[in-house]
Amino acid sequence: MYSFRNDYSEGAHPQVLQALTDTNLVQTCGYGVDPICEEARDLIRTVCAAPEADVHFLVGGTQTNLTVITALLASYEAVIAAHTGHVNCHETGAIEATGHKVCVETSPDGKVTPAMVEAVLARHDGTEHMVSPKMVYISDTTEIGTVYTKAELTALRRCCDEHGLLLFLDGARLGSALTSPESDLTLADLAALTDVFTIGGTKNGALFGEAVVLTVPCPHFRWHIKQRGGMLAKGRLLGVQFQALLKDDLYFDIGRHANDMAFRLRDGFKALGYEFPVPSPSNQQFPVMKIQTAEKLAAMGFEFQVERVIDEEHIMYRFVTSWATPESAIDDLLNALAQCQ
Amino acid sequence: MYSFRNDYSEGAHPQVLQALTDTNLVQTCGYGVDPICEEARDLIRTVCAAPEADVHFLVGGTQTNLTVITALLASYEAVIAAHTGHVNCHETGAIEATGHKVCVETSPDGKVTPAMVEAVLARHDGTEHMVSPKMVYISDTTEIGTVYTKAELTALRRCCDEHGLLLFLDGARLGSALTSPESDLTLADLAALTDVFTIGGTKNGALFGEAVVLTVPCPHFRWHIKQRGGMLAKGRLLGVQFQALLKDDLYFDIGRHANDMAFRLRDGFKALGYEFPVPSPSNQQFPVMKIQTAEKLAAMGFEFQVERVIDEEHIMYRFVTSWATPESAIDDLLNALAQCQ
Amino acid sequence: MYSFRNDYSEGAHPQVLQALTDTNLVQTCGYGVDPICEEARDLIRTVCAAPEADVHFLVGGTQTNLTVITALLASYEAVIAAHTGHVNCHETGAIEATGHKVCVETSPDGKVTPAMVEAVLARHDGTEHMVSPKMVYISDTTEIGTVYTKAELTALRRCCDEHGLLLFLDGARLGSALTSPESDLTLADLAALTDVFTIGGTKNGALFGEAVVLTVPCPHFRWHIKQRGGMLAKGRLLGVQFQALLKDDLYFDIGRHANDMAFRLRDGFKALGYEFPVPSPSNQQFPVMKIQTAEKLAAMGFEFQVERVIDEEHIMYRFVTSWATPESAIDDLLNALAQCQ
Amino acid sequence: MYSFRNDYSEGAHPQVLQALTDTNLVQTCGYGVDPICEEARDLIRTVCAAPEADVHFLVGGTQTNLTVITALLASYEAVIAAHTGHVNCHETGAIEATGHKVCVETSPDGKVTPAMVEAVLARHDGTEHMVSPKMVYISDTTEIGTVYTKAELTALRRCCDEHGLLLFLDGARLGSALTSPESDLTLADLAALTDVFTIGGTKNGALFGEAVVLTVPCPHFRWHIKQRGGMLAKGRLLGVQFQALLKDDLYFDIGRHANDMAFRLRDGFKALGYEFPVPSPSNQQFPVMKIQTAEKLAAMGFEFQVERVIDEEHIMYRFVTSWATPESAIDDLLNALAQCQ
Repeated sequence: MYSFRNDYSEGAHPQVLQALTDTNLVQTCGYGVDPICEEARDLIRTVCAAPEADVHFLVGGTQTNLTVITALLASYEAVIAAHTGHVNCHETGAIEATGHKVCVETSPDGKVTPAMVEAVLARHDGTEHMVSPKMVYISDTTEIGTVYTKAELTALRRCCDEHGLLLFLDGARLGSALTSPESDLTLADLAALTDVFTIGGTKNGALFGEAVVLTVPCPHFRWHIKQRGGMLAKGRLLGVQFQALLKDDLYFDIGRHANDMAFRLRDGFKALGYEFPVPSPSNQQFPVMKIQTAEKLAAMGFEFQVERVIDEEHIMYRFVTSWATPESAIDDLLNALAQCQ
Repeated sequence: MYSFRNDYSEGAHPQVLQALTDTNLVQTCGYGVDPICEEARDLIRTVCAAPEADVHFLVGGTQTNLTVITALLASYEAVIAAHTGHVNCHETGAIEATGHKVCVETSPDGKVTPAMVEAVLARHDGTEHMVSPKMVYISDTTEIGTVYTKAELTALRRCCDEHGLLLFLDGARLGSALTSPESDLTLADLAALTDVFTIGGTKNGALFGEAVVLTVPCPHFRWHIKQRGGMLAKGRLLGVQFQALLKDDLYFDIGRHANDMAFRLRDGFKALGYEFPVPSPSNQQFPVMKIQTAEKLAAMGFEFQVERVIDEEHIMYRFVTSWATPESAIDDLLNALAQCQ
Repeated sequence: MYSFRNDYSEGAHPQVLQALTDTNLVQTCGYGVDPICEEARDLIRTVCAAPEADVHFLVGGTQTNLTVITALLASYEAVIAAHTGHVNCHETGAIEATGHKVCVETSPDGKVTPAMVEAVLARHDGTEHMVSPKMVYISDTTEIGTVYTKAELTALRRCCDEHGLLLFLDGARLGSALTSPESDLTLADLAALTDVFTIGGTKNGALFGEAVVLTVPCPHFRWHIKQRGGMLAKGRLLGVQFQALLKDDLYFDIGRHANDMAFRLRDGFKALGYEFPVPSPSNQQFPVMKIQTAEKLAAMGFEFQVERVIDEEHIMYRFVTSWATPESAIDDLLNALAQCQ
Repeated sequence: MYSFRNDYSEGAHPQVLQALTDTNLVQTCGYGVDPICEEARDLIRTVCAAPEADVHFLVGGTQTNLTVITALLASYEAVIAAHTGHVNCHETGAIEATGHKVCVETSPDGKVTPAMVEAVLARHDGTEHMVSPKMVYISDTTEIGTVYTKAELTALRRCCDEHGLLLFLDGARLGSALTSPESDLTLADLAALTDVFTIGGTKNGALFGEAVVLTVPCPHFRWHIKQRGGMLAKGRLLGVQFQALLKDDLYFDIGRHANDMAFRLRDGFKALGYEFPVPSPSNQQFPVMKIQTAEKLAAMGFEFQVERVIDEEHIMYRFVTSWATPESAIDDLLNALAQCQ
């Protein structure tokens, strides 16, 4: 019995929880300007090789996306995203609620390419009668588990430079992305190639938290955080967690473990003859099962989500692994699956 | 050496932290619809004697205020507040950023009275050329430490009913308020007398968290939470904390302790001849000191904030106590103060 | 020498201008609650056979669209539109600027069908993580000149009813639409089949003005008009113009004339061998010409717009006719065209 | 029988209407980039001695105010206004609806002084927890008829420079203001002393229209106009009207006439013993009458508005004059008043 519903089914990685416990009675000032947050910011600048970057900590992903986008765009400017992009379809119109249009292009694999960016631009005439697309939003891993290569990100950067666009990478699942065998990107690459990116904590071992790394100037970013309700009173909780995650590569160990568990799951399914129409090199896996089989697995106590209906008998499901997923849970699942056939 | 800057200078009360630790590896679904949150909601409905209330958990105060206000008001409707109200002056225009005007009336003690509400209404003619004031926002304790009595809250309720207004009580410091010797209110009173109120966790022992108790219908409140970025992925963290706080009256023990420490501080200052122009029956105290004296205290390692300049030589300062404030810190402060004179 | 760039290239139809002149010195109160506007509202209710309808007058189309949409939708609700819909692509993100997402479906002919509505709904899961599509926006004539039939509109109405959606018809070019040979709709049909529709003045003989006909209740619509800046001080100007247009069928005579001139133009082009890939039964016509030919026409003083590039040598152009287009202008154009070949 | 309710009770000044009639059949492109608007813009730059100014035309006042403010302020920036300021109390929260707080200071005479600006600034601590006041909004004439002198406006300018604030003057009644005997200001002074001001057409002889004169750079102002619904399709109507008004000083002749009529009215009332608690040197006059007297006047067919209740028997009323007010209407009113006593 195990839940593969998500990578935020548990609390925090034990080392993160320990750090919170260890610092619990330390007194600091509020709102993220305390010494712990300062150290965490320095650490992030170091691991990103971005000594000039501006680093902020927020609690959640939608909050971070809406704050970054509204802080960097004028009201008539829009953001370009894949149709699968989180800002487009899973944030209840949060971006529009701050006044900005999301210009969408259909993506076969969840990634945005220069050709897609240019297709959006080609639909806009540069006059005052249309929004001005000004930012490209991408996520790594994407919402369907794919990851960017350095070549792909470099091409997007070049495209953005050519058209005067900002590049924003949502790293809600960055731990899994950067440790994926298909990724050759590093934190330093992200700092060099994007204008702003996030290092996701929630889905990679923290209780909560997203670190925003801004290499483009945004002097009043804290005003935007506060105005949009994203400023945590006990801000140091974010600093403590990111320190714990980024010290000694825990962040990457977590990502690697999640991926390893995902690949073990994938390989086990494949060995039993299941297909994965969306090849994912990260901690989300999408096997197609007979509905009947899935119902049996569920009845045995395994949890997972529907991703997409394939036909009347088959559904593509989503299984997600995390720092907390033990090998034994995968093995139990695969054993159960073998029995269900 | 001790900081009286705020009641969110530390992490969580040990019992709250223990509850987070105990549940850390439990798997739940996300976004606050897990069994732990459900139990916490039931517990809140019970302690509020409000079996029909709708309970939601959010992370922070500004986030909560902007979500409640925008969820309950139409775009042309406005909120009435004291000039000292948090929504008016310390949220970076968060309410206006969701489109709503805050109609302000000067308050001598931080509280809103029916007369103040009616003064605001009298300035509005009910036509489409002006906003429609539709909600009264109050905080208990107020931003300057005062508390409402049941008679005062009942009078406000009556005033709101008469004019078709909603009553919203911001309980960021509700633990201190309800345990104040000057308060005769209970959680059940708040549920009976307001349309929506919050039970503040951040300033009363939690790592973070505000519980919203809605007695007025607002069926899509979760859509508003999500759209404004306030939906916590690991929502159960909020449920865990509120369970820990509201079981066995910990929430009130914390409030009472904070108040006791505040009164000990106040009485000590008074014994040394200091004046408190704003009488506060709660965990914020506002003594007037010579700037010179304050500087000496600060040099000895005590931290506290400027509230208001009195004259060239004197400032009214703010000292805040909490669950974490030990008696010894008060005594050390008072000893230091005696030496500073 | 003549401009076919648009149907708002001149001032007002002489009868409309005469009505403005005749009433110029009459004193009335402001903001559209004067007796002239009341009469115009009554007249509209009569011609629409909608005695209970709520009628409002606004100045321009984008203003009207954003006011209608924001007045009728909650903040988490979205509007469904064709990709060609004016609210999607030609209003500089005005709808998003009031907080609402536009959910787009590609349309081959500018119209929205029940299948398209259902495709959008199928992408939304009804949870708080996604916007709730709540309104279907259509335009008649569409942005590319097509018109709805009564059967099509009835099918859309049924689809909206089934899914609890509002139906909003933007009638910026309603005069041309309702007099099109391909339309069997009447104003009464629109009142019966939509929740709200507009009768466009600007493109059909008025100096400016859109009449909003609401059959769905929206008691504070005037508050929304005012808050969004759409309330005209000398509101009676709108009443005067709509009275002039709707008395004695002038509105329809204008639409019919515009269409007739458009068909004369189309037939003339066709006789010379030009193709119209988008068949339009209304006052916008889209012939494909060699770029060279178009440049010659332009050099001779004829104005028209690029609609879409076909290939390196050919462009589809847009020609628009109006109440003001004389037969002679069409004939001059066709003679010139014959010379250009 | 005459209405003194407002200065927008009639249509347009005959010369303005004539200009509209004369140009009615001229074809131009839309949206205010036509040659007529260009000429009008040049004319405005000339009469303002501001060759570099950016000039835009909008239809109405609230629309103009919300567009100017949202175009020039970042989302966390606020506007400072007198409590009587139109943006504060008579625009249905239009400024807040675009996300901006209005910081209000009570004004005895409707004007904003440097001391009031500094009082607002003193309430703001410059941190991210509060809005940043960034613009001062004033109106000339004010909402209660007073006017600024050059010395007053210069002092405000200096105050704004010192604190990095923008100065925005709403000239809805600028014709009356600049021709007031108490004003020594010119259009050139306004261009030199403000960052942006408007030349009001609606209340000074036009059918509608406000010209925005920007001396501060705002390169995407047209995007803001369009997004907020303020871009008139037949934009040339605004150019035609402002040309007619500003040629041969018609604009000032109109203002002077309105003032003269107002003073004739005021002097007549005074001669009959009536008091004017708010001394107004412009086209709004505020006599105190017994309610009984006012009711008699109303019964005789004169219209005017309640400004403020004085006591149970007396009300301060508002009488407004305009280009259209004939001497005879004043004399009829005064005769009637004499009879009512």
